[in-house]
Amino acid sequence: MEFERPRGTRDFLFEEMRQRKAAEDILRNVFENYGFGEVQTPLFEDLKLFTTKSGEEIVDQLYNFKDKGDRDLALRPEITAPIARLYLNELQKTSKPIKLYYYGSCFRYERPQKGRFRQFWQFGCELIGAKTPEGDAEVIAMCNNSLEALGIRTAEININHLGLIRGLFAHFDIDAKTQREIMVVIDKGDKDLLKESLIGKDPIIKDKGELNEVLFKLMDMVGDASIIEDIRKLVEPYEETEESLAEFEELIKTLESFQLFNYKLNLGVARGLDYYTGIVFEVYVQGLGAQKQVCGGGTYNLVKLFGGEDVVSTGFALGFDRLMNAIEELNGKEELEPIVSTYVAAISDSTRHDAFKIAQTLRKADIPTEVDLSRKKFKKLLAYANKIGVKYTVLVGERDLEEGKVTIKDMESGKQELVAIDDVAKYIKSN
Amino acid sequence: MEFERPRGTRDFLFEEMRQRKAAEDILRNVFENYGFGEVQTPLFEDLKLFTTKSGEEIVDQLYNFKDKGDRDLALRPEITAPIARLYLNELQKTSKPIKLYYYGSCFRYERPQKGRFRQFWQFGCELIGAKTPEGDAEVIAMCNNSLEALGIRTAEININHLGLIRGLFAHFDIDAKTQREIMVVIDKGDKDLLKESLIGKDPIIKDKGELNEVLFKLMDMVGDASIIEDIRKLVEPYEETEESLAEFEELIKTLESFQLFNYKLNLGVARGLDYYTGIVFEVYVQGLGAQKQVCGGGTYNLVKLFGGEDVVSTGFALGFDRLMNAIEELNGKEELEPIVSTYVAAISDSTRHDAFKIAQTLRKADIPTEVDLSRKKFKKLLAYANKIGVKYTVLVGERDLEEGKVTIKDMESGKQELVAIDDVAKYIKSN
Repeated sequence: MEFERPRGTRDFLFEEMRQRKAAEDILRNVFENYGFGEVQTPLFEDLKLFTTKSGEEIVDQLYNFKDKGDRDLALRPEITAPIARLYLNELQKTSKPIKLYYYGSCFRYERPQKGRFRQFWQFGCELIGAKTPEGDAEVIAMCNNSLEALGIRTAEININHLGLIRGLFAHFDIDAKTQREIMVVIDKGDKDLLKESLIGKDPIIKDKGELNEVLFKLMDMVGDASIIEDIRKLVEPYEETEESLAEFEELIKTLESFQLFNYKLNLGVARGLDYYTGIVFEVYVQGLGAQKQVCGGGTYNLVKLFGGEDVVSTGFALGFDRLMNAIEELNGKEELEPIVSTYVAAISDSTRHDAFKIAQTLRKADIPTEVDLSRKKFKKLLAYANKIGVKYTVLVGERDLEEGKVTIKDMESGKQELVAIDDVAKYIKSN
Repeated sequence: MEFERPRGTRDFLFEEMRQRKAAEDILRNVFENYGFGEVQTPLFEDLKLFTTKSGEEIVDQLYNFKDKGDRDLALRPEITAPIARLYLNELQKTSKPIKLYYYGSCFRYERPQKGRFRQFWQFGCELIGAKTPEGDAEVIAMCNNSLEALGIRTAEININHLGLIRGLFAHFDIDAKTQREIMVVIDKGDKDLLKESLIGKDPIIKDKGELNEVLFKLMDMVGDASIIEDIRKLVEPYEETEESLAEFEELIKTLESFQLFNYKLNLGVARGLDYYTGIVFEVYVQGLGAQKQVCGGGTYNLVKLFGGEDVVSTGFALGFDRLMNAIEELNGKEELEPIVSTYVAAISDSTRHDAFKIAQTLRKADIPTEVDLSRKKFKKLLAYANKIGVKYTVLVGERDLEEGKVTIKDMESGKQELVAIDDVAKYIKSN
């Protein structure tokens, strides 16, 4: 019988796991520097949590199943909906703003391809109930900080305010269904398709030449903060955009206070789903092709969708696997220092048990230590110590032991020193 | 519509999550001090991986389902079988012994009750291919170290060598099916049931009065290392136990070298499953009632069961949720230091943006910092800073700013000091 891991999943071995753990720790540190605290929700939820958020169509991409009590469950495809559920169940009475972060697996049943897996990881945050431009700015600044801390220097944050386009829709009286169709096309980011859909022979929106022209120009607005002037000129005639434009301008000013300058305004960022209401942003890492989007976020009102009161959240989710991919593509595989710093080697069979004793003493002194468990010959032990790259090898020989001593070999310099057994830990720690 | 988390699962909020993370980090540190490296396998596997290991009966306790490609999958109920699968797929050519550890969720469909959840966490290790008493000793010593490091002082490691009872079965020619029945009874740890099953009116093993008597006496052997003499006397007449007895005795000697003394020999530890071959052990924390077992481990040959060659592993899995339960029951809820050490408070509306700037500078200097995002009045800011327990509040006022300065308030002593904006991070770090 052959056992293989399920299609589209991965095993992580030692080195890769350490790289991932190191990145995880860096992100935790950044998020905690901003005062966000970690929470955790179950790996599966009621199926209806996800269909309520994303529509019945999402079922095709889910791992959903009935449990033995006939409940419809689904492995979570993302963590925003579970967090909204968590807020409704546990955090409604907590004073706002609430700052939380999460890290965990998500699951999507889709055709496995480069950079897309059926089990993948998301690292994300939510700022619940801030309702200010500084709330948005802090979240975006933290996103930028996260990427910097990971050493990803070619990341580019693209920010939009969906209130502008929604204001245009309102002005021209466009129904919800048509709005959704347009947003889907915008979200695809395909200029030719957009042109065809807006100002082609058979546009989605009929008899609204002016709207189509404005939308098409809007989608072309990509650039640094200074393009806000052009945006203003374009949407100013439509008063339904006024409030959002003012918010957008205040965000730009606030981002400056949060010391964030290297971002783009990009009116083509749409985020697809209905519940996004205001600021949205996506992060692209150039040079990663189809895998370039490593983060998506924005302001939305998911709690209301789930039957709670009107609470605004701003959050983002980093695609952890894509980040790991970006780090490797951009910076190459960084070799991590070996964890084990010390090897204890018995010179002869007769000192094997003394070697165990010394190894234990070092471990209890918080020195990562290896000792032979396969009764290898001494020569092989030294070769092994070299191979695993320890800094010190403790040579345990009969004659030294008689004096209560062992020889410590510095593996880099080759220098050997006779040290009292009781002082080995101190010696290694002080060097 | 009401959304609830699925039955038998949990949400973890800030404080509990930090407690769990702290325990996780302690365990990682101990395992890495012993030279074990982390690996990770998928959350679900082919169903047949688990039925091959544990029999078809296990399906009743699994979250199993068909994916959209009609594959039979199951959320993993434990991580030993996935690790054996990982070894077969990826590690067969790696030089032995291989030392790995894992931490992750497991899932069991069972009636939720105190301390038993449908999603639970295991922290475990495998030492693959050592085949020596020092291999077993190191694993058991690491288990003991883990519990010590977590501050669980009433843990009791109970060790057995299943070769003794298997030797007796061989001597008395007991078939595999009957062996399994007996082992199940032993595993239950119920003395009365055992008496009834072995030497009652209708014993499981017929016409083997002598075996039944020896087994019943054997099950009563619980005590420190010195009882090995009584064990020897009891099993010596049956030569099929000789090799295992010698191994058991060598383990005891080796445990001493690994500086482990506070354990028990307990011939009643059975571990239930067929693939355990030699040393087995369980850890009980007294005072936790039905939740007292926090760890199970031993030596087994799972790789062979899955169609690989004959490779012995020794490993254990800590029930992470039970450990957390034990820590709280034994030591009470330990208050953790707040992560955020500094609060930046704008004294007036006009200095709000300066407060953002200073907060960002501190965060980038790796000082966990909060700043108001809800435009609270200054008085409320101070109250909030007090509530979250920061060490310093940075007061940002107009007049100080004119001189390029801010006032830093030590929240414990109440002492205030005027500090140049550029020196705030340095000031906080050096205090």
